[in-house]
Amino acid sequence: MDKPILVVAIGGNALLQRGELMSCENQRKSVAATAQSLAKLSENYRLVIVHGNGPQVGLLALQNLSYRDCPPYPMDVLGAETQGMIGYLLEQGIRKELPQAEVTTLVTQVLVDANDPSIADPSKFIGPVYDRETAEKLAAEHGWTIKPDGAYWRRVVPSPAPVKVMETDAIKCLLDRNHIVICGGGGGAPVVKNGPDIEGFEAVIDKDATASMLAQEIGAAELLILTDGAHVCVDWGKPSERPLTDVTVTEMRGYAFAAGSMGPKVDACCAFAEKTGGVGNIGDLYHALDVMNRTTGTRIHR
Amino acid sequence: MDKPILVVAIGGNALLQRGELMSCENQRKSVAATAQSLAKLSENYRLVIVHGNGPQVGLLALQNLSYRDCPPYPMDVLGAETQGMIGYLLEQGIRKELPQAEVTTLVTQVLVDANDPSIADPSKFIGPVYDRETAEKLAAEHGWTIKPDGAYWRRVVPSPAPVKVMETDAIKCLLDRNHIVICGGGGGAPVVKNGPDIEGFEAVIDKDATASMLAQEIGAAELLILTDGAHVCVDWGKPSERPLTDVTVTEMRGYAFAAGSMGPKVDACCAFAEKTGGVGNIGDLYHALDVMNRTTGTRIHR
Repeated sequence: MDKPILVVAIGGNALLQRGELMSCENQRKSVAATAQSLAKLSENYRLVIVHGNGPQVGLLALQNLSYRDCPPYPMDVLGAETQGMIGYLLEQGIRKELPQAEVTTLVTQVLVDANDPSIADPSKFIGPVYDRETAEKLAAEHGWTIKPDGAYWRRVVPSPAPVKVMETDAIKCLLDRNHIVICGGGGGAPVVKNGPDIEGFEAVIDKDATASMLAQEIGAAELLILTDGAHVCVDWGKPSERPLTDVTVTEMRGYAFAAGSMGPKVDACCAFAEKTGGVGNIGDLYHALDVMNRTTGTRIHR
Repeated sequence: MDKPILVVAIGGNALLQRGELMSCENQRKSVAATAQSLAKLSENYRLVIVHGNGPQVGLLALQNLSYRDCPPYPMDVLGAETQGMIGYLLEQGIRKELPQAEVTTLVTQVLVDANDPSIADPSKFIGPVYDRETAEKLAAEHGWTIKPDGAYWRRVVPSPAPVKVMETDAIKCLLDRNHIVICGGGGGAPVVKNGPDIEGFEAVIDKDATASMLAQEIGAAELLILTDGAHVCVDWGKPSERPLTDVTVTEMRGYAFAAGSMGPKVDACCAFAEKTGGVGNIGDLYHALDVMNRTTGTRIHR
């Protein structure tokens, strides 16, 4: 019988330790540790790996801006570039752990709704901070929306909900052939319908939301979101802090989590559990197998 | 019965007209015209599309160098980035022509031999030209090999022969499911064996050679190399210039062609024809179907 499908989402720290210089060497080092943890899952599951791209797309956006002869490339195209780079490094890291495995990286487009409420009010900060004057000048030059971020100003883009992964058929086909599939990088390159056509759209889709949507579309048994904490906690950072281990969707929705951080991970697991009856797991990047063996991490179910 | 497999290689002009500014808009425009030509082939063939990346990897290498906080990323990683970018744009262009088709882009690694003779004597020019002093300074800083290019100096990297496409199983699997597959971009990201491991290697593989190797590996019926001339010509640019239409491998090997330009295309077709008994075709980018219908172009066979 085919092994069950597991969709794993990995974040920034899987590709680069916080605060480290974003060199290729540092990325390879982080990827090696991540690959060790992920490889252990392959004995029990057919794996789909969805990764973030925040720092990488930020670096490309900076380089992009510095090339003065050429108008900057849009975010969706830069996102596709990071899928190539990160997918390549991850693929090599995983092959090193599993020399016999077939590992395949797909460039992924994700359809979003052009009427998504986040599009009218973009709020996802990307790229460096500027003083107000510079930010306004850049915004006028490049058609950016900018917003204050603390004492500085930054570019903001929409973060619409994923509606459909365009490569679902390819992913299923490769899983049926027992490939480990890397896809949906950076949440996928966002596209919208324009009449009969599909075209790129400047936005950043939350990668956990994309992983959840994809897990639903391809009939995954479970969803696993890896991060740098052992458990989801209630009252995180307060004296009343309490780790959650086994929680229903209804209970989970009674708690409040940080919007830019644990919130989207919890939402992604709740959506997956509610719609499929499967389990959504959140746990530590370097203990992926222990999370799936229920010895650590947080499980969310109906 | 399944349609025959056709591997198509497209070069720089398929993605950007010569002399044009390398903006995203210009690339989208060129890709749209290319996609129109390629789409017409899909009725009769299962398509695999291999593209070049010369100008794109050059742009990334320049940006890369300008980001002073970070050591430059190696060529194999930049190549993987261009696979993401170009694959994404091509995929959108082809879907616009064929809204019902499944189109899938694979990040591709191509194994080369660490003892390939080109590695000891790198000769493929990449990136901008420098005066001698600057070139020597950069070479010392980054471990580059540099060589004179006319009055200037430039970085050179090896261009080893492709030995094996690492993603062959994925490509076959997707073709069996009737996907149009985009892969091997920029000749594929070069990798070498290091004991049991596969690791990235700084080189540029000729994309026509990769297309030929891949066509042999996946059992393609024909190979089609698209360029900006209607035929391969003997004595090109001389008064005795004569177009070739239907030629045997043996006859073709009696002629001399330009090393950096028509030579590799002819070699790629000869190798494919000789080893498989199939036909290698070379012809005009915008008349792909006419080339396959034998009304234009050059056919090379045993």
